Amino acid sequence: MLYIPRGYTFSSVEANFRYQDREDLALIFSHSEASCAAVFTKNRFQAAPILVAKENLLKTKWKNQAIMINSGIANACTGEEGIKVCLESVRLLSRHLNIKEEMILPASTGVIGEQFDDKKWPPAISKLGEYLGKKDLVDVAQAILTTDTFPKIAFRRFEHEGHIATITGIAKGAGMICPNMATMLGFIISDLKISPEPWQGILTYAVNHSFNRISVDGDTSTNDCVIAMANGKSSVGVTPDILSQVRELVTEVCLELAYQIVQDAEGGTKVIHLEVKGAEREEDAEILARAIAHSPLVKTALYGEDANWGRIVAAMGKTQARFIPEKVKVIIGDICIFEKGCGVKIDTDSLLVSKLKRQDITITIDLQMGEEGYWMLFADLTEEYVKINGCYRT
Amino acid sequence: MLYIPRGYTFSSVEANFRYQDREDLALIFSHSEASCAAVFTKNRFQAAPILVAKENLLKTKWKNQAIMINSGIANACTGEEGIKVCLESVRLLSRHLNIKEEMILPASTGVIGEQFDDKKWPPAISKLGEYLGKKDLVDVAQAILTTDTFPKIAFRRFEHEGHIATITGIAKGAGMICPNMATMLGFIISDLKISPEPWQGILTYAVNHSFNRISVDGDTSTNDCVIAMANGKSSVGVTPDILSQVRELVTEVCLELAYQIVQDAEGGTKVIHLEVKGAEREEDAEILARAIAHSPLVKTALYGEDANWGRIVAAMGKTQARFIPEKVKVIIGDICIFEKGCGVKIDTDSLLVSKLKRQDITITIDLQMGEEGYWMLFADLTEEYVKINGCYRT
Repeated sequence: MLYIPRGYTFSSVEANFRYQDREDLALIFSHSEASCAAVFTKNRFQAAPILVAKENLLKTKWKNQAIMINSGIANACTGEEGIKVCLESVRLLSRHLNIKEEMILPASTGVIGEQFDDKKWPPAISKLGEYLGKKDLVDVAQAILTTDTFPKIAFRRFEHEGHIATITGIAKGAGMICPNMATMLGFIISDLKISPEPWQGILTYAVNHSFNRISVDGDTSTNDCVIAMANGKSSVGVTPDILSQVRELVTEVCLELAYQIVQDAEGGTKVIHLEVKGAEREEDAEILARAIAHSPLVKTALYGEDANWGRIVAAMGKTQARFIPEKVKVIIGDICIFEKGCGVKIDTDSLLVSKLKRQDITITIDLQMGEEGYWMLFADLTEEYVKINGCYRT
Repeated sequence: MLYIPRGYTFSSVEANFRYQDREDLALIFSHSEASCAAVFTKNRFQAAPILVAKENLLKTKWKNQAIMINSGIANACTGEEGIKVCLESVRLLSRHLNIKEEMILPASTGVIGEQFDDKKWPPAISKLGEYLGKKDLVDVAQAILTTDTFPKIAFRRFEHEGHIATITGIAKGAGMICPNMATMLGFIISDLKISPEPWQGILTYAVNHSFNRISVDGDTSTNDCVIAMANGKSSVGVTPDILSQVRELVTEVCLELAYQIVQDAEGGTKVIHLEVKGAEREEDAEILARAIAHSPLVKTALYGEDANWGRIVAAMGKTQARFIPEKVKVIIGDICIFEKGCGVKIDTDSLLVSKLKRQDITITIDLQMGEEGYWMLFADLTEEYVKINGCYRT
């Protein structure tokens, strides 16, 4: 069962920008203005839709009513022409929806550097208006995919003073960057009543505790963004007493989507749940977690279902993070395989093998120095990843 | 033709530490004490032979007479027992060679975390003494290999005031880190006459301009080291007037070895010559070069012979290096494929294709801001790399 917040309708169509025989243009529409929160890629080559969306949010003081998303063409590194086409598509849609242009946020995912065939936009947007309300969020989740193999959806509901509010999100992966296929998009809609500022606080927290902790290949795309809308239709106002509860629920939605992105990583066969604990400072734990999660050798070993702690400690050792090599423990599941600077002789080898054979593998690094920690989800590195990314464009 | 400096003899034997039917223990021996320069891994998990070698150099004030190298077992993360075995092997060899223990530098490469079978050392070292002078440097270069597919050797000669001096180096790869196979070793021998301090200056410069600029998978092993010996037998003293010439020659030897390591990268099919130029500061150029050289998506695209500038600029964009996106030019060979924030339409597509089909691919990034630059050599990322590293231990 999938719950959708009140006051939203959807559309999706085949615009054939790049893909054939599948939908590649979608619309999320709120019946009234929503508070909008958003986080955008930190990549310094920013795609045209990122620039336009940021500009629009400034104009509306973080309100919006629609999100229009296309897949196949990222509209990144497309210069003035890319901006022009993006603005024009927003203008066309604003007439169909009868709302101000700046109430629409555009988002794109696909190949970097290719221009749209601009003749395709007017008929596609006509159809998008025509189908509005005839499509659902699953259609949208499907239309925004690129190399993903399944749509990514998650939701949470909660009751407050007799009213039920819903938070529902969709996302697409399938590499943190596969930059031809610029990349991660996430859209959260809710019927919560909340003003833009605390809503942004909630989204920032949620993204930092979900999407920002996953790694497929350790890169950041030119098009990444997560946009969250709250249109107030549930009559649940986010008062200070329930703010932290709402924050947790939004985080859970983001986390479920983030998990699905790693599960659907390009060529990936494993989801590794990595926790670095016992650090003096959170930033040390984060540096170590990222070094491990990005190491091609750790990733290939896990693909090979090999409890190769040598690669894990070597990845840690190359960082400047604060830790004492002799204190480090490496634990797979609950089996300690490395401590006091040496590997641990394991009697229960078959137990370890069975833990590595699963899709979900848990690795814990205990620095035994303090109370701070950091966790990440990451994918393994496989021949299939190389095949997908070696042959994508050609 | 391979030239060997005067006053060195060699040995190599089958110790069967891990490998069968191939030599895995080798010795470089100078007939007299040599000035010794060395650079060691910065990884914080340091292998036993690294710790022992550093200690010995401190005792001798940077003199040495022998280097003993084994492959198959890295003696890294082996704790007290690893140090004990290493010291004992050095002690045994010192008796056979009739030199002080601290005149011997040990080096190991192979699987992290495995202990030596210490019964194998005494007979192996006896044989090593027995074969001294009966083997040559090619045998040594062969015995130190792990996943490498060919031995790596380079030399330079030069004449000064009627005397000829020779600088000859060997190295092994085959990943910057493939940490089970901890990893890069380089040994330079020469018959130059030079005291340890300027010799160290030369080696540091040479390593910074060669080995430190290559990337197979962007990691640093627990065992990396480069050791250089100068025994003075050529009667060519390195006076200030020829110091910079000698520095260039040592750098050239290191560079040729570094090139061979990338050429023999695990699973690699390409050697990419990357230059970032036009930077205001060298450090910005270096950050950008490393971001590009380590990007799995750039590496897979080059494997696929795809001039995918989108992945290159996305890798640059995620860094904090000083550059202006709109000024960046990306050039393959001499064909500019990206400038002013957009891809360049190329009429000569077949020309570009032929450039990408070669083993050696040149990529130039021009930031158009200043005079500084940085270059690197790196390998592509292939299914074979995943296969080698996913299945290595099992």
